Formats: sequence, C-alpha cells, structure tokens
Amino acid sequence: MKGPRGAAVVAHGGGPTIVMNASLAGVVEECRCHSQITALYGARHGIEGVLNEDFVDLYKQDRALMEAIAESPGSALGSCRREVRDEDYERALAVFRARNIRYFFYNGGNGSMYLAMRIARTAREAGYDLRVIGIPKTIDNDLAETDHTPGYGSTARFFASALRDIGSDLRQLPRRVSVVEVMGRNAGWLVAATALARYYPDDPPHLIYLPERPLAPDKLLADVDRVYSRLGYAVVAVCEGQKDDKGGFFGADQFAADGFQRRLSANLAHVLAQLIAGGLGLRTRSEKPGVLGRSSAAFASRVDREEARLCGRAAVRAAVSGETEKMVTLVREPGPKYRSTTGLADLEKVAYTERLFPSEWIHPSGSDVVPEFLEYAAPLVGEIEPQPRLKA
Amino acid sequence: MKGPRGAAVVAHGGGPTIVMNASLAGVVEECRCHSQITALYGARHGIEGVLNEDFVDLYKQDRALMEAIAESPGSALGSCRREVRDEDYERALAVFRARNIRYFFYNGGNGSMYLAMRIARTAREAGYDLRVIGIPKTIDNDLAETDHTPGYGSTARFFASALRDIGSDLRQLPRRVSVVEVMGRNAGWLVAATALARYYPDDPPHLIYLPERPLAPDKLLADVDRVYSRLGYAVVAVCEGQKDDKGGFFGADQFAADGFQRRLSANLAHVLAQLIAGGLGLRTRSEKPGVLGRSSAAFASRVDREEARLCGRAAVRAAVSGETEKMVTLVREPGPKYRSTTGLADLEKVAYTERLFPSEWIHPSGSDVVPEFLEYAAPLVGEIEPQPRLKA
Repeated sequence: MKGPRGAAVVAHGGGPTIVMNASLAGVVEECRCHSQITALYGARHGIEGVLNEDFVDLYKQDRALMEAIAESPGSALGSCRREVRDEDYERALAVFRARNIRYFFYNGGNGSMYLAMRIARTAREAGYDLRVIGIPKTIDNDLAETDHTPGYGSTARFFASALRDIGSDLRQLPRRVSVVEVMGRNAGWLVAATALARYYPDDPPHLIYLPERPLAPDKLLADVDRVYSRLGYAVVAVCEGQKDDKGGFFGADQFAADGFQRRLSANLAHVLAQLIAGGLGLRTRSEKPGVLGRSSAAFASRVDREEARLCGRAAVRAAVSGETEKMVTLVREPGPKYRSTTGLADLEKVAYTERLFPSEWIHPSGSDVVPEFLEYAAPLVGEIEPQPRLKA
Repeated sequence: MKGPRGAAVVAHGGGPTIVMNASLAGVVEECRCHSQITALYGARHGIEGVLNEDFVDLYKQDRALMEAIAESPGSALGSCRREVRDEDYERALAVFRARNIRYFFYNGGNGSMYLAMRIARTAREAGYDLRVIGIPKTIDNDLAETDHTPGYGSTARFFASALRDIGSDLRQLPRRVSVVEVMGRNAGWLVAATALARYYPDDPPHLIYLPERPLAPDKLLADVDRVYSRLGYAVVAVCEGQKDDKGGFFGADQFAADGFQRRLSANLAHVLAQLIAGGLGLRTRSEKPGVLGRSSAAFASRVDREEARLCGRAAVRAAVSGETEKMVTLVREPGPKYRSTTGLADLEKVAYTERLFPSEWIHPSGSDVVPEFLEYAAPLVGEIEPQPRLKA
C-alpha cells in the first residue's frame, strides 16, 4: 500500500543528542526519494512549531549544508519539553489538514512516542489519513522494544572518554578521590558504559553505581576506602538519578523549577564527594559534565551516527509503504561481527515505557557491571583508546 | 659557556595539562642532541620521585612511544602537590650528587617555580654545579613574565568549545538557564576565553564573570533576568574562584581536605544555579566539567602543543649554554600574524607570583570581556567552529 500524496512534518522532542541531526538528514534524504511527499516541513522546537505553524522548508536546504548539519550535535530544528493538552492534539490535526500534511515523523524518547501515538489516534478517530512514525532518540537508552537507541552510543562514548581522562588525571596526581556524575536519569545504561574506559589493570573507574540498585552511604564509604587503600586514589562513576537505601538522594538538592526532572538531584556528585571527604578524611572533588555529554561532537560514535541516519530513512520508508503508529527499532543481527537492521514496534508499546538496566548485568559487588554488558555496549560506543604510558 | 657533563632530571609539578607531555617530549628530544647530558631521568610524581629516587630512564623510551606520549594529555611522569620542607632540598641535592645529576628541568606553575628556585639556591650555596631551568605550565595562565603559558590555550579551547556546545543545547531547548563552572582558581583567563565560543549575534555565553571582580548576587540576578527576558534562555560562565561582594563564595562549600585549594568553592555553579532558580523562578541547572577541562586530548590547541614542546627544548638549550635559575618564557612577536619565540626570566620573579586578568580587559558591564582580549587569546586557542544552522 502506497502512502497518500501530501506534505510531511519532522520534529524533535525532548533533550538533544549528539546524533539526532543525522536522523533529520536521513528523513530529508529519504523524503526526497518519494514523489508523493510533496513538501517537507521541519517544525521549530518540536510540537510547539506544529501548533504555531513555525516551519522551516527542508527541501529548500542546500544539500552540503544538510550534510554539515548531519555531522553536528544537538537539534538543528530545536526541541521542547512541554505539557501537551487534549486540545493541542486537535489543533495539530487542524494544522495538518490545512496544509495537507499526511506524514508526521517525530524524533524523541518515550514521552515523545506518547505524543506521536496521541496525534496518530486523533487523526485516525477523525478519519484523516495521517502516517505517524516515531524515530527513536535518547541518550539514556531506556526505550523499550529496541536493542538500543540512537544517541546512546555517542553519549556513552563521551562519558567513557571522560572517565578515562579524569581517571588518568587522578592516577597521575594521586591521593585524591573524584566522584563523576553521569547522565541517564533513572537508567544505568550510561554510567555502566564508563567501564569501557578501562584498559590496564586497576584502571578507573574503580566504582560504578547503577541507579537500579539503591546505594547505602556506608557501602559507598567502605568501597572507596578499600580502593583508596590499595591504589592511593579512587574514581567513582555515579548516575545523576542514584538513590540511597532510604529512597532519597543522599540529601542532595532537587531541581527547583522543572516538573520533568524533579526526581533528579542537582548536586549529587558534590554531596557524595562531601560525604567521602567527611567520612574518610580524603581529598575528594566532584565533576559534573552535565549536558556537555550530549552536545559535544568530538565524541560522536560512528556506529551511532550511521544508525541514527538509518532510523530517519527507515521511518520515511515505513510511512510511504503504509505503516503508521509505529516506532523504528534497531535490531542486532546475530553473528560475531556487529551488524544492525531496523524494525518497527507499536507506539503503544514504547510510549512512556522505561527500559531499565538489566539486573543480571550488574556485578554481584553492586559497584560494577559484568562482561556481557561490555560485549553489548562496545560496538555501539566504538573503541576507547588508552593513553600511552612510559615503560618502567 | 658549555654546561657540565652529567645526568639530567625532568619532573612535573602541580596539576596536569593537556600539553605538558609535549614539553616532556621536547626535553627528551633536545637532551639527546647534547652529548654532555649523559642520562635523562624522569622523576615519578614530581619532587617525590627525586626524593625517593623513583626514576624512569627516558633515553630508553622508544621514539615512537615518546611521540605518542607527546600527543597525549596529562602527565606521563606523574605529578604531585606536596609541602616541601627545608630538609627536602638538602635531600634532593644529595640525590643529585650521588648520581652526578647536573641538570634539573621542572615543568610547573608558580609554586613549582619556587621549588625549582630553592633547589637551585641550595646547590649554589653548596658549591654544586647544577643547572636549573623551569618550564612554564599552567592552565590558569597566571604565570608572570611570560606572554602566556603552555597548557592555557588547550584548556581555554576546551571551555570555549564547552560553552558553544552547552550553549547550543540551551538555545535549541530553551526556557532554561545554565551556569557553567570554569577552572582558573583566582584568575579569569580561562573563563574570559569562553567568549571565543560566540559566532552569531546573541550567541552564548551571555554572561561571563571574572574572579578579579567581585559579583553581587543582585547583579547576577538582574543580569540573568535581562538576558532571559530578551532571549528566552541564558548561559552563564563563571570561574570556580568567583567571589561575592562580601568576599565570600555565595555560601558555597569549601574543599574539605585540600590545603592548596581551600580558597576555592566546590559547588559554586550549583549554588549560583539555586540562587537564580529561587530568585527568578527560572529552570536553572549547572555544569562543572572540572578536571576534564585539563585532561581531554580532543581539545588540544595546535599552537599550545607546539609551544609546549618548544619550551621543553628551550629549557635544555638554555641549561647547556650555561643558564640557571631561569624559567623559559613565551614572547609574542610583533606583526599581524601570530608568532612566538622563547625567552628567559629569573625564577625569583615568577616564584609564587600570580598574574591576574588585566582590569582593562574586563568590559565595563562587569559581565564580559573586551575585543582586545579576544585578539590576545584567539591565536592561542585556535578557531572555534560554529555549529551549522538551517536557513530560515
């Protein structure tokens, strides 16, 4: 079944990633191949751009510029985090009708997939032929139904590289402890990937805590004490969403003015550093690269960028071949060498569903991951080269 | 006057930088050219390695490995921050005598230059012919007598790139404020360089505060409010050593267990973010890349790395030509195109002297720098490419 003739809209939702512009470029590239897609509008700042009819004509963009944008981090279209009300879905449908928009591609995480699903249902119930396909995107890797998510590999690469570099700094100038805060909200996928920073025995990070497992302050102190006593320094990787054994955030401050992130602490690494300094008398500092981890192009993973683009193209192909209310997924092919293809999952199955880090991949010590996870993550992140060392 | 025949020691002091291994490679390369330097020892972890005779034979290192190390961040030798007592200088001299060490090259900042001066004087007073040359190194750019310091350009490049990337993230997903903490202790050279992140009008960072000028909390709030009202988001760059108008740190925590850094706050950006969130009701977060800013090779400045190597070579050449108790300096050549050469300054003039950011380069608004500074810094940092944008 061939899709209807009409215009398409592509939009971004939620936080930017290092490779979401590659998905955008994939959408543009593939739409140009299908004559029934008569126009391609990019909505500025996600659903806000749809509601305000703030569109950029993507067919008019120079191809060389689009290739430059494909390599650049962040969201060239702009994104938003916004409460969407029932009447907004009706308004979006009215905009689509007025411009004969028949395709809607929404690049985002599980909240964005909910929005896409609601738009699809609003159109279906109104008898308006609209094809809605979600393009997966999240640094957190917490989307269901997909092996992994575009955006994850590159931010994982950033934080693995950061732990290698911060770790080297402490190894070279020891008698210090550092607590490095890693993004990931409630899911441990990113902090887990910092294990890829290791190359030589005893390389940092020495302690990796996953938010799926509450951390008692006493355990943290005992763990750091043990590492420091043996090595003369200690490097801790902790997820921004880590909770203590009482379900709190170690007394850290919560974000004051952000309904979406009230569950996150705003100064977790600092609070843990103070806890270690006070409890063990060790010189302890904290680092929090924060959103730099999702915005620094220097750490783009090649596989991640290629797959992001692939997902953008696959979304368009699915829509023109008759699919709707689906999200593109990444499927890992069996075999010794990493290969992936795309699949499709129902939006309903991914909307507001959070895929946490599997407990069987958490090391029994509670402060590390197991090798099976490294096999999963390594091809997505790419090689993290060790820093060269003098010979003894 | 030709230097004496004997061995040489090279050591690192203080915090690592992105290019100090290039200085090390320069020392090794140049020492190999002078037959009177019979051996070259690298002291492990700075003066500790001298006192404990923990040396690595640098003539035995493979040349390809040394070139790889030259390109790598951090301190391949290891460094230290350690109180040096009077008897330690005597002990160092005893080690030098026992091994016929006649050359001492110390790569560090103003504290390290004091140590180098004391070692030189101890030897001179004992009538022991020792050539001591300091190699400048600090990310803070606060060494006296030199136009700038190896290590500064690369960390400035890191933070300028970070402000470009974090700034883009906020521009693309607006209605947020971010306070980014920049290294630099009491000197504003690094935070000032974040102005190089700007390309388009109104590009972040919108507010740059220099620690040389105290910042009243009310001014911060008024500045952020003005920017946010106009642009819908605001990005603030602040130095880790920024003080308020009462000489305090806005109520931020001080480092608990670090005699060297007690003057620094440990969570300044977070405290400022809370202040803004509370005072203006804006969604505000903070980022603190911390030591990642001096350890991430991806941001090495080409000029900085070349000059670091040049300083290492110049130190050896100065010593074999008879100089001692000097530090190598960088001298900017007049002319439209940036060029530099090396000079020498007395260690006495740089030991524990801190060169602060010139007040005439602070913008009258108190929240920016003037173009003259950008002309000074741009060639040291290298070009910061803007991210490409869609055409309207």
